[in-house]
Amino acid sequence: MIKVGVFGATGYAGQQLVWFLNRHKNVEIEFLSSNTYDNVEYSKVYPNFYNNISINCINIKEAIKKIQSVDVIFLALPHGKSFDIVKEAVKYKTKVIDLGADYRLKDINTYNEWYKVEHNAQEYLEDFVYGLCEIKRDEIKNSKFIANPGCYTTASILALYPLVKEKIIKVDSIIIDAKSGVSGAGRAANTAVLFSECNESIKAYGIGSHRHTPEIEQELSLASGAEIILNFTPHLVPMNRGILATCYANLNKKYSLEEIKEIYKKYYKDEYFIRLVDNLPETRNVKGSNFCDIGIVVDKRTNRIIVVSAIDNLIKGAAGQAIQNMNIMMGLNDKEAIDILPMMP
Amino acid sequence: MIKVGVFGATGYAGQQLVWFLNRHKNVEIEFLSSNTYDNVEYSKVYPNFYNNISINCINIKEAIKKIQSVDVIFLALPHGKSFDIVKEAVKYKTKVIDLGADYRLKDINTYNEWYKVEHNAQEYLEDFVYGLCEIKRDEIKNSKFIANPGCYTTASILALYPLVKEKIIKVDSIIIDAKSGVSGAGRAANTAVLFSECNESIKAYGIGSHRHTPEIEQELSLASGAEIILNFTPHLVPMNRGILATCYANLNKKYSLEEIKEIYKKYYKDEYFIRLVDNLPETRNVKGSNFCDIGIVVDKRTNRIIVVSAIDNLIKGAAGQAIQNMNIMMGLNDKEAIDILPMMP
Amino acid sequence: MIKVGVFGATGYAGQQLVWFLNRHKNVEIEFLSSNTYDNVEYSKVYPNFYNNISINCINIKEAIKKIQSVDVIFLALPHGKSFDIVKEAVKYKTKVIDLGADYRLKDINTYNEWYKVEHNAQEYLEDFVYGLCEIKRDEIKNSKFIANPGCYTTASILALYPLVKEKIIKVDSIIIDAKSGVSGAGRAANTAVLFSECNESIKAYGIGSHRHTPEIEQELSLASGAEIILNFTPHLVPMNRGILATCYANLNKKYSLEEIKEIYKKYYKDEYFIRLVDNLPETRNVKGSNFCDIGIVVDKRTNRIIVVSAIDNLIKGAAGQAIQNMNIMMGLNDKEAIDILPMMP
Amino acid sequence: MIKVGVFGATGYAGQQLVWFLNRHKNVEIEFLSSNTYDNVEYSKVYPNFYNNISINCINIKEAIKKIQSVDVIFLALPHGKSFDIVKEAVKYKTKVIDLGADYRLKDINTYNEWYKVEHNAQEYLEDFVYGLCEIKRDEIKNSKFIANPGCYTTASILALYPLVKEKIIKVDSIIIDAKSGVSGAGRAANTAVLFSECNESIKAYGIGSHRHTPEIEQELSLASGAEIILNFTPHLVPMNRGILATCYANLNKKYSLEEIKEIYKKYYKDEYFIRLVDNLPETRNVKGSNFCDIGIVVDKRTNRIIVVSAIDNLIKGAAGQAIQNMNIMMGLNDKEAIDILPMMP
Repeated sequence: MIKVGVFGATGYAGQQLVWFLNRHKNVEIEFLSSNTYDNVEYSKVYPNFYNNISINCINIKEAIKKIQSVDVIFLALPHGKSFDIVKEAVKYKTKVIDLGADYRLKDINTYNEWYKVEHNAQEYLEDFVYGLCEIKRDEIKNSKFIANPGCYTTASILALYPLVKEKIIKVDSIIIDAKSGVSGAGRAANTAVLFSECNESIKAYGIGSHRHTPEIEQELSLASGAEIILNFTPHLVPMNRGILATCYANLNKKYSLEEIKEIYKKYYKDEYFIRLVDNLPETRNVKGSNFCDIGIVVDKRTNRIIVVSAIDNLIKGAAGQAIQNMNIMMGLNDKEAIDILPMMP
Repeated sequence: MIKVGVFGATGYAGQQLVWFLNRHKNVEIEFLSSNTYDNVEYSKVYPNFYNNISINCINIKEAIKKIQSVDVIFLALPHGKSFDIVKEAVKYKTKVIDLGADYRLKDINTYNEWYKVEHNAQEYLEDFVYGLCEIKRDEIKNSKFIANPGCYTTASILALYPLVKEKIIKVDSIIIDAKSGVSGAGRAANTAVLFSECNESIKAYGIGSHRHTPEIEQELSLASGAEIILNFTPHLVPMNRGILATCYANLNKKYSLEEIKEIYKKYYKDEYFIRLVDNLPETRNVKGSNFCDIGIVVDKRTNRIIVVSAIDNLIKGAAGQAIQNMNIMMGLNDKEAIDILPMMP
Repeated sequence: MIKVGVFGATGYAGQQLVWFLNRHKNVEIEFLSSNTYDNVEYSKVYPNFYNNISINCINIKEAIKKIQSVDVIFLALPHGKSFDIVKEAVKYKTKVIDLGADYRLKDINTYNEWYKVEHNAQEYLEDFVYGLCEIKRDEIKNSKFIANPGCYTTASILALYPLVKEKIIKVDSIIIDAKSGVSGAGRAANTAVLFSECNESIKAYGIGSHRHTPEIEQELSLASGAEIILNFTPHLVPMNRGILATCYANLNKKYSLEEIKEIYKKYYKDEYFIRLVDNLPETRNVKGSNFCDIGIVVDKRTNRIIVVSAIDNLIKGAAGQAIQNMNIMMGLNDKEAIDILPMMP
Repeated sequence: MIKVGVFGATGYAGQQLVWFLNRHKNVEIEFLSSNTYDNVEYSKVYPNFYNNISINCINIKEAIKKIQSVDVIFLALPHGKSFDIVKEAVKYKTKVIDLGADYRLKDINTYNEWYKVEHNAQEYLEDFVYGLCEIKRDEIKNSKFIANPGCYTTASILALYPLVKEKIIKVDSIIIDAKSGVSGAGRAANTAVLFSECNESIKAYGIGSHRHTPEIEQELSLASGAEIILNFTPHLVPMNRGILATCYANLNKKYSLEEIKEIYKKYYKDEYFIRLVDNLPETRNVKGSNFCDIGIVVDKRTNRIIVVSAIDNLIKGAAGQAIQNMNIMMGLNDKEAIDILPMMP
């Protein structure tokens, strides 16, 4: 059995992680950590687990002491909170899967600029593999430390990766217009995400300044070989879960839809969790699952390609991909514990 | 392997059934029937199943011919549509689990009065066991035909059964005020359940005339030994899934909350799918699962008891309970295939 | 022109009040007070008012100094926060309309018991008229101080008043099962009312202990002449606005629906804001308006009457009724400024 | 008094129109036409009007006979249904405001290509003024026939007009990513817009093929002097009302945000219904009103401009703008009857 501990177990991503770990046949949960709910029974915080998870949360200090006794720790913490934990994990053979942002950006200056936090553990930055499973599978297999991608990032990169890798779009023409459910904003009490503030409204936010921008640019630049700067616009949609990324780019020359689809198949045809759908994706068709659905339109009038991807932000965009990363690292089947179909409606 | 066929596979309850059957390790799906989507690939109708279920729907006529080759058929059809199918099943050893209303009411006059349909297969009425698993377990084990309870009915009876069985409430004082998500209304195109008609509104409907009333009365009367007539008021709530039943009754004498809880434990303590929760239940805590959460308040000011139950209308209120019934009939563990925890948020 | 000031102008009820005051042709807004947004431009807090209301909020201390210069003050504050303000208003000729709970309960012990706050201005308690417009019109006309009723209370009393006044129901049999949109919980940042916590779920809360219970009991007892104790159960529904109250009572003898309707007409036929609807009310049909829609069912099987009422909790349940009270006090037409039809969908 | 008649009075846009006409002090409603609800009392169809509008609907045939007796007719019909009505109106002095699509496109071939309908009244095409009030005010004043713009179109053109008119963007770089509430799909019973199909999901649809595309292109080309071809992508959002249009374009040279804002003020500073907001617009801030809120971001990293506009699709995107057009045609104040502030939440 793989012994695991979770830091930040009572946030939305954290509890989704617990949901999967709890049903993973190779996993034993050793501790769930939450400063807010220190010493509170986990199912008091999340009554959906009533009668199924009976352990109490422990605080971060206590949890750090237990790192040496587990095989894998998961970090579902705000950025800037992982440094001490990682330093401790490094001392032992404990693997780390960080769902936060601290080890995703390889350039420390970019991190400082976008996150306004001093990075206190940059010596380990290069040990972390960017855990976008379908693209970094080989590196993940051999890694001990995973920087689990952001939610918007996952949807955006999976949509655009074949296009930039194959150099069939003008890389300065990329626009990503993304829409997210409200759980992406986390569970902290905050007027802006009250029910009556979000319901019956849609808004854009953080245009040109959202922190997932440099993350998308880093990975697409790496794939392209050229430096990519792009527009990324997130929107808040009145639904609990789901991200839809509508991605636009100018084609370098004329392509038929069939040609484009062949290219996507080349990259994704063996990937169970990526589905190249015939119609346009909808977030409801991936809700509750680890799937990323991708649909493609070639607009002959403008010679632009529009790629739409849909994920569940808390699963493929966070906890599900974290489990998938663990499965790959541990030599298990990708699908272990996360092989749940989307549930409708 | 248990070979199964589903009639009405493309309604909301039907597709939820397919969702569970598809992951049931002892089950092989032989056919999915839908007149509306005859010969259409199932995952074109429900793209959440894309890449996972590839068979085409067949029409009812074709499906009836296949009854003899399967072990169990599930019927997720409107009332009045099951008669010919049941007649055919009777000819073979095929078991029937009917999610519709045709075999729930034991009194044919009551059926005629509330459903306004002539019952064309009443000779089989007494062969059907009312499949409320936690209450009829022994009968279900030995049955071939199951009338799967209605959604409101399941929530209401599970909430009130111990009280009437133990005769601790005045049986003429029962009021059930129930609230349902919109999927309970089915998938037929109907102005009244358009998004813009249901969203941002709540209404009561069918006061005093909803067809689940006689079903609740029948089963509670049976438990009580006396004829029970009660008030049942359904409401439509702007959410996809979930039923909350708030049940009121006058206590025969003073009881403490602890005494009442002991009574509920007597009936339900070994039932995995019934959870006696400390706080009041919320539908989100059972969403996506087969659980029925029950919370109890004794109001000393009025000497009334208020029992609140929460289920997922498509699961414990339909497809989940149908699978649970099949599991019991087949000697399997109740939890097989339906052992999914509620997913939050 | 009537000069007015608003305390608590940035809560949900407060801003709805401002919405109506801003369009009231006889009103001039002198100040908007909010400690949270002291010195912030009002339309920065509520951008729906952008370009239409340009004044800055002032804090409560400053606002108290201005009481003497206005004709009417509105208080939209949490309970226990009105005492000093009322004492100041008493010094001048300033009228007070309090949307909070501090002057609704006439019995100081009941107030202390349910609100757990010491009442520091009880000497003025009897000067306050309970401002349920359709029932207390004459008293309101001659009053200077109005205790504006609670939202649940308004819906509940208007539904039941004719029945208790005419003594046609058993007064110990009253059960009120009420459902509210989330704006009723106010705008304070609170995990329990986050979008992802409320959306896609319904729950009961405060069973037997909600503070609107004694308020309903007080007014119905007054109407009845007997002491009424009843059950009141509030529920939280995933929608912004609206209250539906489903009220149950046993009839003293057999009545036809027509007889009952005649009784309701006797009380309400001249009241523009009460609509006796033929079908069952839905909250969407009153959303954005000051209407209270009432529908009635007589259930012959149980000889129970079920009365369903629907209001917009922020309007007839708060700000709209407050304006209606002011209009009555000032000798204006009830409808002035609040004569807006519900907007669909 | 202006005598008016409404064709298609029971669709969502139609009833919103009735809502405004009913409160317009210069208007008398002569007839409301609906084939679906022929001879049904209007407030039975829309109970929000209960006790306020008591007339019965008449069918289209009857309504056509009454055209000669009214001053203005409003058409809120599906495309292709206006031809006979317009021909009749032409015979008299009856003015026409068509909320449908039949007279918006000036090129008959474009109409045929996108709408797949033969145009039977093209002789009147050039008599129709495209009624985007803030841009065509002078033409509207002198017209008898108005083609009221589409909902997406209004939001898109108002956002982009100053940029193309002033030639500060590359016109081949325009991408409009728009999001609409579900009422935009109309009230016809259709599985795709059932509550349980739309709720908790977002999707793109009609990429590259939505019929508002040529309408936007026509008007922007006219403003620009060059032929503009662009990408327009609509999305369906789980909310009743609202359109948010996120518009992207490459700037011809570097501009500061202040320079851009000055340009927008030049065009819109005297327009009450256009609000240039400091923060990004949200649909809730315009809900229930005729406002179009516009926010602007200049992204220095990519030298792209992002303009976001928000409207209420049924008001500024349909009925409100229709009233505004009538007001302008009739020499009334733009704001008459539509001077309602957005209501929050």
